[in-house]
Amino acid sequence: MVEDSSQLEETRISYNMDGEVDGEQRDPESNPLNEPLLKRNRTLSSNPLALVGAKVSYIESLDYEINENDLFKHDWRRRSRDHVLQYILSKWTLAFLVGLLTGLIATLINLACENIAGYKLLAVVEYIQQGRYLAGFLYFAGFNFLLTLVAAVLVVWFAPTAAGPGIPEIKAYLNGVDTPNMFGASTLIVKIIGSIGAVSAGLDLGKEGPLVHIGSCIASLLGQGGPDNYRVKWRWFRYFNNDRDRRDLITCGSSSGVCAAFRAPVGGVLFALEEVATWWRSALLWRTFFSTAVVVVVLRAFIEICHSGKCGLFGEGGLIMFDVSNVTVRYHVMDIFPVVIIGVIGGLLGSLYNHLLHKILRLYNLINQKGRLHKLLLSVAVALFTSMCQYGLPFLVKCTPCDSSLPEFDCPTNGRSGNFKQFNCPKGYYNDLATLLLTTNDDAVRNIFSTNTPQEFHPTSLLIFFSLYCILGLITFGIAVPSGLFLPIILMGSGYGRLLGILMGPHTNIDQGLFAVLGAASLMAGSMRMTVSLCVIFLELTNNLLLLPITMIVLLVAKTVGDCFNPSIYEIILHLKGLPFLDANPEPWMRNLTVGELLDVKPAVVTLQGVEKVARIVDVLKNTTHNAFPILDDGAIPPAAVANGATELHGLILRAHLIQALKKKWFLKEKRRTEEWEVREKFTWVELAEREWNIEEVAVTREEMEMFIDLHPLTNTTPYTVLESMSVAKAMVLFRQVGLRHLLVVPKYQASGVSPVIGILTRQDLLAYNILTTFPHLEKSKSREKRN
Amino acid sequence: MVEDSSQLEETRISYNMDGEVDGEQRDPESNPLNEPLLKRNRTLSSNPLALVGAKVSYIESLDYEINENDLFKHDWRRRSRDHVLQYILSKWTLAFLVGLLTGLIATLINLACENIAGYKLLAVVEYIQQGRYLAGFLYFAGFNFLLTLVAAVLVVWFAPTAAGPGIPEIKAYLNGVDTPNMFGASTLIVKIIGSIGAVSAGLDLGKEGPLVHIGSCIASLLGQGGPDNYRVKWRWFRYFNNDRDRRDLITCGSSSGVCAAFRAPVGGVLFALEEVATWWRSALLWRTFFSTAVVVVVLRAFIEICHSGKCGLFGEGGLIMFDVSNVTVRYHVMDIFPVVIIGVIGGLLGSLYNHLLHKILRLYNLINQKGRLHKLLLSVAVALFTSMCQYGLPFLVKCTPCDSSLPEFDCPTNGRSGNFKQFNCPKGYYNDLATLLLTTNDDAVRNIFSTNTPQEFHPTSLLIFFSLYCILGLITFGIAVPSGLFLPIILMGSGYGRLLGILMGPHTNIDQGLFAVLGAASLMAGSMRMTVSLCVIFLELTNNLLLLPITMIVLLVAKTVGDCFNPSIYEIILHLKGLPFLDANPEPWMRNLTVGELLDVKPAVVTLQGVEKVARIVDVLKNTTHNAFPILDDGAIPPAAVANGATELHGLILRAHLIQALKKKWFLKEKRRTEEWEVREKFTWVELAEREWNIEEVAVTREEMEMFIDLHPLTNTTPYTVLESMSVAKAMVLFRQVGLRHLLVVPKYQASGVSPVIGILTRQDLLAYNILTTFPHLEKSKSREKRN
Repeated sequence: MVEDSSQLEETRISYNMDGEVDGEQRDPESNPLNEPLLKRNRTLSSNPLALVGAKVSYIESLDYEINENDLFKHDWRRRSRDHVLQYILSKWTLAFLVGLLTGLIATLINLACENIAGYKLLAVVEYIQQGRYLAGFLYFAGFNFLLTLVAAVLVVWFAPTAAGPGIPEIKAYLNGVDTPNMFGASTLIVKIIGSIGAVSAGLDLGKEGPLVHIGSCIASLLGQGGPDNYRVKWRWFRYFNNDRDRRDLITCGSSSGVCAAFRAPVGGVLFALEEVATWWRSALLWRTFFSTAVVVVVLRAFIEICHSGKCGLFGEGGLIMFDVSNVTVRYHVMDIFPVVIIGVIGGLLGSLYNHLLHKILRLYNLINQKGRLHKLLLSVAVALFTSMCQYGLPFLVKCTPCDSSLPEFDCPTNGRSGNFKQFNCPKGYYNDLATLLLTTNDDAVRNIFSTNTPQEFHPTSLLIFFSLYCILGLITFGIAVPSGLFLPIILMGSGYGRLLGILMGPHTNIDQGLFAVLGAASLMAGSMRMTVSLCVIFLELTNNLLLLPITMIVLLVAKTVGDCFNPSIYEIILHLKGLPFLDANPEPWMRNLTVGELLDVKPAVVTLQGVEKVARIVDVLKNTTHNAFPILDDGAIPPAAVANGATELHGLILRAHLIQALKKKWFLKEKRRTEEWEVREKFTWVELAEREWNIEEVAVTREEMEMFIDLHPLTNTTPYTVLESMSVAKAMVLFRQVGLRHLLVVPKYQASGVSPVIGILTRQDLLAYNILTTFPHLEKSKSREKRN
Repeated sequence: MVEDSSQLEETRISYNMDGEVDGEQRDPESNPLNEPLLKRNRTLSSNPLALVGAKVSYIESLDYEINENDLFKHDWRRRSRDHVLQYILSKWTLAFLVGLLTGLIATLINLACENIAGYKLLAVVEYIQQGRYLAGFLYFAGFNFLLTLVAAVLVVWFAPTAAGPGIPEIKAYLNGVDTPNMFGASTLIVKIIGSIGAVSAGLDLGKEGPLVHIGSCIASLLGQGGPDNYRVKWRWFRYFNNDRDRRDLITCGSSSGVCAAFRAPVGGVLFALEEVATWWRSALLWRTFFSTAVVVVVLRAFIEICHSGKCGLFGEGGLIMFDVSNVTVRYHVMDIFPVVIIGVIGGLLGSLYNHLLHKILRLYNLINQKGRLHKLLLSVAVALFTSMCQYGLPFLVKCTPCDSSLPEFDCPTNGRSGNFKQFNCPKGYYNDLATLLLTTNDDAVRNIFSTNTPQEFHPTSLLIFFSLYCILGLITFGIAVPSGLFLPIILMGSGYGRLLGILMGPHTNIDQGLFAVLGAASLMAGSMRMTVSLCVIFLELTNNLLLLPITMIVLLVAKTVGDCFNPSIYEIILHLKGLPFLDANPEPWMRNLTVGELLDVKPAVVTLQGVEKVARIVDVLKNTTHNAFPILDDGAIPPAAVANGATELHGLILRAHLIQALKKKWFLKEKRRTEEWEVREKFTWVELAEREWNIEEVAVTREEMEMFIDLHPLTNTTPYTVLESMSVAKAMVLFRQVGLRHLLVVPKYQASGVSPVIGILTRQDLLAYNILTTFPHLEKSKSREKRN
């Protein structure tokens, strides 16, 4: 009805935008930041910046609150029983697909890595047997160099967000922080290929973290119906186009990833529950469980297929990766002492590792910021160093004679996985360090976990192994390839565990292989600070239930010791990236601050009227960066009160919906309320779920500027509110527990002429770090108490 | 300062109370209710009645919200680092003690049951070997009768709340509903002795549910420093005297209980997480894990001690109860069909069981209400019937010749646990039904789970076994002894599973013992509707990780099928008892109702002034049953607004604190605000944590009635609020997520003279059942959609 207005007088708002003062804030990527860490403003204005793939980007908050506006309610009422069944069915279908695809891709990655690395190692062994050590090294290092180069080039040029494990970003996403480009199709592809390259290159990194990210990418892509530009527009997908369902799917995806990485279905669910997810529901537990069950069935099917030798060098392992179930675990109450010692040392080493890794990541950020070439050079330099050490160090140790009780076939082993690699040794001898270094990481772990072989590894070799992997574990993580943290820590931990086992050998009857397992567990707990999920993962990895009590003790001790020094490695990375992660528990000093005091240092809230002039809306959208605006109204108030100047808080409207109203030219010539059918003709609930932020694309004529928009039908009439006298601690609990993006603050007293809303709090306002920069006096009373 | 007022004019408020109209509501136990189910009022007034041990009692809601009043804040500020450390340390100490004591008591119960039942069965076997069948029966039935009698008498006369498993009540407690006398010392003792009696009597019930209750009782008693009348008054206990910490402890206790019952530490934690707890935090996961680790260590230590034969007939089993790890699990993709069939049948049977049990429990309620003697008679009648069947039925089946490949020692077995009981058979033969019936329940499960014994049980025997335990499982649960649901369901499920295994034998290569395990799992999932925790419990029970994928599928299928018919058995019992359990997800129709509309059908809210007259407070306390009152004030408002009649919502005060102020005679002669030190002289935070509800004990003189109380320092200044336009769905999410007891409703518009608070919502107001009775038109739009 208004679209016939003359298009000639149209003024592109984008044109006006360029001169805006806050224009420079709009593209932070063009602003070179020289600090390795993000700097925040001294005021409480939201400054949503984060390091994404070593670049500073804008980040968005997610909307988990149900936007109860007229359209939604209408849509909800219209949903028939069939719709609901369809919705539930498609949820389960998606969970099934997530599991299926994650399982398939995990198998693909495993196959590719085992074959590439396997044939590479076979060739190297051939060179060595011919005595051509230099040629062998050149082949080994060159091959690794090329593989790393492929992975790094892909990551640096095509998907910077594919670097690293991705777990911190997923954790942040599930907390309500949307990092851009994290779950795209390009990220997924680069992550898969990059992970294959980096793992095959023998770098000290795992495919576990990347698999979690891959699972989440698959989930996100499936949920939105495909990659951004090629989405399937099926009708039933519309129900999934909201942050809540995407959150649930990504939770499924991340647990499927863990399950695929460790072949640990229950561990995967618990990992998502304990470490990754912020919100959890019983129904979700069940669906993630279903996804991981599918993953396990897929993995098992492929293992059965590969058992017949159709998969090249792949086929080792079965469903349980590091089987130690054949060990007769006999331990007594006195064995609690070595177990506690492992835990304490694991906790110490873990927190030390976190500390050093933090320093190195800061340093790497400085290097990575210099440009793409620097990133690439750093990656290949690390790859070369790794190759040199892996190939060179075994020459330093003496050859060990094979145990004569072993069949000749078992020792030395060449050209296949096995415990006793011959390397440079004469026949009948093996090089124990080569067994650990010149192999894939998975096999290295399998070898060092091997039980009933007390004399196999010499302490010197283990010491070299442990020291090398400490260095590699620190320098490899930050490079621009997909990398997981699990395997490096397992390698380090198993090295020190086995060393400890040799040292304590006379005083205990725990097997050295078990010491390696416990060492790995303790270092994981010391660095990642998980307990139940790690425990179950180790249970599922090693298939030995009798280990449970001592594993539990090791994990608890290591986590306790580690917590005395620093937070978990994921929290450190979250902080380093500047992701506004909302903690579960408020800080104690937050009880002494009211939300009213917080609002005093924020700019005043911008409100709109229920039926608002177009010009005012355009003006507000142009001049603020807020994502939501309270709607004031006087519609439903008793006339006497209106005469007294009373206004009502009608609700909250999202910027995206305002822009949609402008785009659709949902304009009224006179100031009036609209009927429900008028709105439904113009908007569908599906469209409102789309995120439209681009005010530049909106064109409004001068004539239209004088018209009105009835915002009532688009307004969420049930936003959560707190009184201004509410303490920040309790407001934060509400914000996090309910999963909010905006929290309205209303006055605590009733008086005419007072605005019924006095401010909006967002995630950034409730972050402890931000509050402390604005209210430095609170720092004194900080003395953090953990409400365990 | 006011205590010198003449005591002569004192009027006991209790005297006035007797004539109150609502006096009859105060003692519902004296009101015989003739309905088997609780009837609720047709208005939305809170009517907190519940069936507790077959009696109707008042129930209380719990306060998980932090009461941020001046005293609390002062106390919080004063807490030094040492206090905080002490607090954390004592939390862990308590978690340790919970685990230790639960482990010890579980061992005691196991020891007692195994020995009592063991010697009983030995004697019976002796009679049978001598051919004195009648004497054997009389001995058997008489022994069981006596044991049941002891258990039932204790329960009926001393602790009615000790009947049943207690898990629904714990679930309700952790949801915020305090059932009276659930966690007392007498309940604990009766539960222990009663459980020993009932299990030894061979009744079809388990010690698993009671152990969960026992763990929770221990936790609750430890948290409050001992039984009600003999509490330890150590200073550091004061920090635990609040509902939040007690909730955490009871969560620890319940997972310790499950862990002790199944020797499944991870399963215990997950059970608490999935089934019992409503609120969960990462820190809690860790602490419950610690408790269960302690339980496992205790159990293991005792098993080691008993291994040497010092514990009488106890000593069987080891840490894993039903070990099937020696089975080579070879299954192929085609085996998925039998597995799905087991799941479907399990789901059907499980929901049928729930349905029938519901009917029988309603019938039993009618019987139990008739008096204590009826309860007792019902219990012993069931015990006699059980004994008759267990002893008589084995005579119906034919003797089976022993497998000649077995050593003579193994078949037939007499006088010790073993698979082939001779019973009435000649030498070289065994009675397969006696193997299953004339033994302890644990041994029966062990026997029926036994693998690689395809010919051991005859289908007829299994059919008799299954039918008998279906009947016993239905009639035993409701009697007045401590009884768990796990074992009856496992027995039933294993029976039908093994039967199915025999039927499907030719078409699958899954072992019959595994069929029994899967059948048990499917029935559990079909009745209790848990997935992850059951999966882990079965994993830990059977020690066979390779079973995991098929167990997962069975559980998922069974739960899905069961959910089509009725809710889980625990939910049915919760509903039957009338416990106001707040569900996790709001019903869809709750979106179409605002809290304002809910308030319209409630009585008006009663508010108090910041400085209030004593007479008014006494009057309010006498004439209402509310547990909290909003405090209005005009203290901190700009004078201009006050002139306009503006009032401020200062906060919320609890009935308990008002009564304390009256008791302590915290009266002011003039109407004024007090200083902080004045309050601190009079009250300590510890005292405020006590629950004082007894207005009858308060004595106020006529003179004092004219004085004032400054309620400001006792007021929680940060209650959670919602606008009157908030939908009930979102209000319920807030209520449950944050763990509230009272939710204040504030007006959505600003006008002078309007009260700043228009109502209070409590748990009862937000229950779907209650809303539907008041707003029957919503029923039409019910068409329940599950937001899975």
